[in-house]
Amino acid sequence: MSKEEKIDNKGLTVKKAENIVDWYSEVVQKAELADYAPIRGFMIIRPNAMQIWEAIQKDFNKTLEKWDVKNAYFPLLIPESFFKKEAEHAKGFAPELAYVDSKEEGERFAIRPTSETIMYDSYSKWIRSWRDLPFELNQWCNILRWEVKQTKPFLRTREFLWQEGHGVFETEKDAEKDMMRVIKAYKKLVEELLAIPVLMGKKSKGETFAGAKETQTVEAFMPDGKALQCGTSHNLGQGFAKVFDVKFQNREGKDSYGWQTSWGFSTRLIGAMIMQHGDDKGLIIPPKVAKTKVVIVPILFDKTRDKVLKKAKEIEKKLSKFGVIIDDREEYNPGYKFNEWELKGVPIRIEIGPKDLEKKQIIVVRRDTNEKSPIKEKDVAITIQKILGLIQKNLFEKAKEELYDRMDEAKNLAELKKKLDEKKIVQVYLCDEKEVEEKLKEKTGANSRLIQETQKQGVCVITGKKTKTRAFVASAY
Amino acid sequence: MSKEEKIDNKGLTVKKAENIVDWYSEVVQKAELADYAPIRGFMIIRPNAMQIWEAIQKDFNKTLEKWDVKNAYFPLLIPESFFKKEAEHAKGFAPELAYVDSKEEGERFAIRPTSETIMYDSYSKWIRSWRDLPFELNQWCNILRWEVKQTKPFLRTREFLWQEGHGVFETEKDAEKDMMRVIKAYKKLVEELLAIPVLMGKKSKGETFAGAKETQTVEAFMPDGKALQCGTSHNLGQGFAKVFDVKFQNREGKDSYGWQTSWGFSTRLIGAMIMQHGDDKGLIIPPKVAKTKVVIVPILFDKTRDKVLKKAKEIEKKLSKFGVIIDDREEYNPGYKFNEWELKGVPIRIEIGPKDLEKKQIIVVRRDTNEKSPIKEKDVAITIQKILGLIQKNLFEKAKEELYDRMDEAKNLAELKKKLDEKKIVQVYLCDEKEVEEKLKEKTGANSRLIQETQKQGVCVITGKKTKTRAFVASAY
Repeated sequence: MSKEEKIDNKGLTVKKAENIVDWYSEVVQKAELADYAPIRGFMIIRPNAMQIWEAIQKDFNKTLEKWDVKNAYFPLLIPESFFKKEAEHAKGFAPELAYVDSKEEGERFAIRPTSETIMYDSYSKWIRSWRDLPFELNQWCNILRWEVKQTKPFLRTREFLWQEGHGVFETEKDAEKDMMRVIKAYKKLVEELLAIPVLMGKKSKGETFAGAKETQTVEAFMPDGKALQCGTSHNLGQGFAKVFDVKFQNREGKDSYGWQTSWGFSTRLIGAMIMQHGDDKGLIIPPKVAKTKVVIVPILFDKTRDKVLKKAKEIEKKLSKFGVIIDDREEYNPGYKFNEWELKGVPIRIEIGPKDLEKKQIIVVRRDTNEKSPIKEKDVAITIQKILGLIQKNLFEKAKEELYDRMDEAKNLAELKKKLDEKKIVQVYLCDEKEVEEKLKEKTGANSRLIQETQKQGVCVITGKKTKTRAFVASAY
Repeated sequence: MSKEEKIDNKGLTVKKAENIVDWYSEVVQKAELADYAPIRGFMIIRPNAMQIWEAIQKDFNKTLEKWDVKNAYFPLLIPESFFKKEAEHAKGFAPELAYVDSKEEGERFAIRPTSETIMYDSYSKWIRSWRDLPFELNQWCNILRWEVKQTKPFLRTREFLWQEGHGVFETEKDAEKDMMRVIKAYKKLVEELLAIPVLMGKKSKGETFAGAKETQTVEAFMPDGKALQCGTSHNLGQGFAKVFDVKFQNREGKDSYGWQTSWGFSTRLIGAMIMQHGDDKGLIIPPKVAKTKVVIVPILFDKTRDKVLKKAKEIEKKLSKFGVIIDDREEYNPGYKFNEWELKGVPIRIEIGPKDLEKKQIIVVRRDTNEKSPIKEKDVAITIQKILGLIQKNLFEKAKEELYDRMDEAKNLAELKKKLDEKKIVQVYLCDEKEVEEKLKEKTGANSRLIQETQKQGVCVITGKKTKTRAFVASAY
């Protein structure tokens, strides 16, 4: 096999605009982000993706620290009886539960699909007085939901990694405030770290978390018009507190049920990042989550080899804080290397050849725009820092423009359907009722991603009734 | 309930020297390190312990980075057929496997008790040529082993957290080198970070990991004379490579099976730390893994309250890099607070009262020695840094002395038994055979923790035959 064939073999064979589903699968595989596991619906998270998850974890752990929310770890297995306590929660999760074959014990144990029930069982033992409140813990863990829908690495898998936070508060207002603090932090993380613009708002009754009073969501919208939920934060009211007996002695000395929240985001975020920013050359990693922000490809000829390599190492030293690497592999030519690092999404490529040495310059190539420009060797650290900032900003701005381009509105069902076909995210008036949500799904295949209350009344596209609720409608990943 | 009663209630009721088992359970519960879960044999890791695990993770991730070993994540579930491929491995793990109730698929899936099988299935797809080697990944994850023995938080639980590293090499020598590199790094981590002295060496045939050619171990020895395995590193030979088809094209262009290693340590280390350093007042956390290294308890009287608090905050600022906190709770008196922070093992307590203000000093109390000394306010950051170093060193030295005191030797079975009763770690001559190991266990209740080859021959305490193998014998957690 010639080197050229190898390049073809490694590069993408599908264009993003032509078939985003196949394009996505190819990027995931060829950029070595994930691989399929021997059990259907499971994935293997490879180092290139794990590094992104670790960058996200590091950032969010800082936020948790600021909030004084500490990490803990609760068991993987949950007694079946726990799920039966909160009726809505039980109904919501029953189809997706996987149970462990019973051993000596009588009861069945489910693998956690989320940890409200097992955590609140402990909370009820630990919380005694209003002085213990707010009480809030987070855990980073794996989650199992036996999906029956078509799975897709990161976006929908039977096992995924996530964080889940769980708070208990003295008053409903405190719980609401916490729900909002978290959803805003999620928006900031997704937008600033992953450069993905999101819409933030409330879920309709039909889309609220099983067992919650209110769910706030941040939603990204992919180039194919589909919505991708990036994180949710729930006001649980006192529903779980009552069935798990999460009580505290209040300031008046009386027993009172806690007001609770729960909130989470998952490795889906990696899927959103791939789909949002990638192009026909492969992945594009926003600089802030890229472990390797810069790759140096020295252009090596026999005569000047040592000099160029020496210079490359000097530059590497100056850029050490950017997780820079030098690709000095002998067995591949520069073109092959360029393709490979573009496929893997490294934000900046630096080329150094013999001619650059003379000019005391290096060539910098941006992954997002393909712009190629010489920069003075002596300014390299400052200039690279600046360019990384520009890439981060450009990715976000570009994505925001695309999002705004796709946002539209509709006055009736026919218009809504037409615009959904055009891959728009469509704002409509919609009564906030479970049955209305179901009919919407039946008739359009799409659902409401988030709702807002408006001043003006309008006509619900499903019921024809007057309503002040506006919904963003899209189909979803 | 009066404040004094509360103190009694919170403090330990058992002395370590009198009943280390009950003492351990009390420390775990009262220092809020872990709690029992609703399913037998499972535990909840609370923030005070999770912080220690995170400090260990951070340290070891740096080592992995230095080695260029990247983190990945493999599925929780493993097809039953995978376990049947390597006969010894299958036999070793069969009794501890928990299976998931089968859904639509035909085959049963086990929850991972370790990930050799599922990882090497992928390795066989990813590795093509000698150029891909060494190939080595690590994962941090949860593990399930359905223990039938009595469980104990951290030391033996059905679910625990760990890291597992898995390498593939071109030659057996490379694999051996990797095994040794890892076990030495484990020794360094356990000794330098957790201040626990360990013995390092080879496991006997009877104690070698199921499916491995050789196992290297680091073993700590607790105050009750019991051994506690702190980490193991295995040379897997080509056994797994052959059944999982982990092949590569070698430098001569021929197919060759990889030489493999696997290695891991777990949240047991937290148990070792508790048991090694704790005393009758509670936990003692070695400064290097303590998130909160210093607690400031201001001594508050009505008249001087504001001044003292102001000073406490000044000191807090100067010590910010030590994760310092101020305990200014109104509802507890200083004595109560002293007890609580001693119970929780914070390495240094600082007391600041009105008299100290006048003298421009603060009072520093070491958790390890109870030494109380005034230090000049202006030197506070440097002095605290020094004292933290002294505490770390003292904990290690003290533990090392205890370990040496407990090390002994025996010439025959009767002597061995006697010395085991005296809670010694006993070095004996022992033939390195599985049957001999089994007999040793039968006759003494203890087993060989590690073995060494010596120059001199001696008489095996079990068979009476001549042998050059010396074993450290102890009962184990």
